[in-house]
Amino acid sequence: MLRQNAINRIALACGIGLALMAAVPAWARQVTGHEPRSAQEIRRVLGRQVEAWNRRDLEGFMQGYWHSPELTFYSGGTAVSGWETTLARYRNRYQGEGHEMGNLDFSNLKIELLGPSAAFVRGRFHLKMSSGEAGGLFTLTFRKFTDGWKIIHDHTSTS
Amino acid sequence: MLRQNAINRIALACGIGLALMAAVPAWARQVTGHEPRSAQEIRRVLGRQVEAWNRRDLEGFMQGYWHSPELTFYSGGTAVSGWETTLARYRNRYQGEGHEMGNLDFSNLKIELLGPSAAFVRGRFHLKMSSGEAGGLFTLTFRKFTDGWKIIHDHTSTS
Repeated sequence: MLRQNAINRIALACGIGLALMAAVPAWARQVTGHEPRSAQEIRRVLGRQVEAWNRRDLEGFMQGYWHSPELTFYSGGTAVSGWETTLARYRNRYQGEGHEMGNLDFSNLKIELLGPSAAFVRGRFHLKMSSGEAGGLFTLTFRKFTDGWKIIHDHTSTS
Repeated sequence: MLRQNAINRIALACGIGLALMAAVPAWARQVTGHEPRSAQEIRRVLGRQVEAWNRRDLEGFMQGYWHSPELTFYSGGTAVSGWETTLARYRNRYQGEGHEMGNLDFSNLKIELLGPSAAFVRGRFHLKMSSGEAGGLFTLTFRKFTDGWKIIHDHTSTS
């Protein structure tokens, strides 16, 4: 009798657990202390961008961006469209004469999933250059493509 | 016999139609020339914000924002958190001594749905004031709550 009661309780607990899992979509489930897999993947994309920047590899840095004419980049009231134009903007701004790329670092990263294939990231960037320091805030919109998470829109503003 | 054939064809067409509808989530369906309902709702939120601003009603304007301490507002390298703090920033910037709100207008609005309850909006704002004109770019992240679509993050940069 006692044993049957215990089995009933376990069955009830499993039932409730399964019902809760079905009610919350997979991308929204977050185990305390563990970041969802999608957020981890996005964090790795950003990590690879920082590594590429710091070895002066702008094309590598640009791998984090959607390779499309529809990519948009907003900064200081100026809108740029397209992957190539965005790369050209970076080249001009950080590799042009009298410019340097410096050492890049991100902080205060807040990765928020918005659906199974969309997310947005808030954060702060810091650049250490021989001439001094620079930095600012960014908001990135990410979409998941067949080849992984890519930034489809970047809005950056400097201090 | 012919009649039965016609019925079969209609049944087949209906079946294909239903299968297509089931394969594409509601928020992703977009009838050519028609904006999805969610995008229309977001456009109305923005419209109400412009109307509120132009009658000098900052609290009304703020109804478009998520009333939460987690709302974030990024502008010119400065991050502000919380609905009240964001309202205070607007009051200080546009209703403080020597400031004026001017006449607000949005253009180049691009509303992109990211899931059934998330979207982001790119656009340009213009302010006509007695002292001249101002403007810039914004990126808004929207979430759908039980009381409608609200901005949960705003990144603005001025020209």
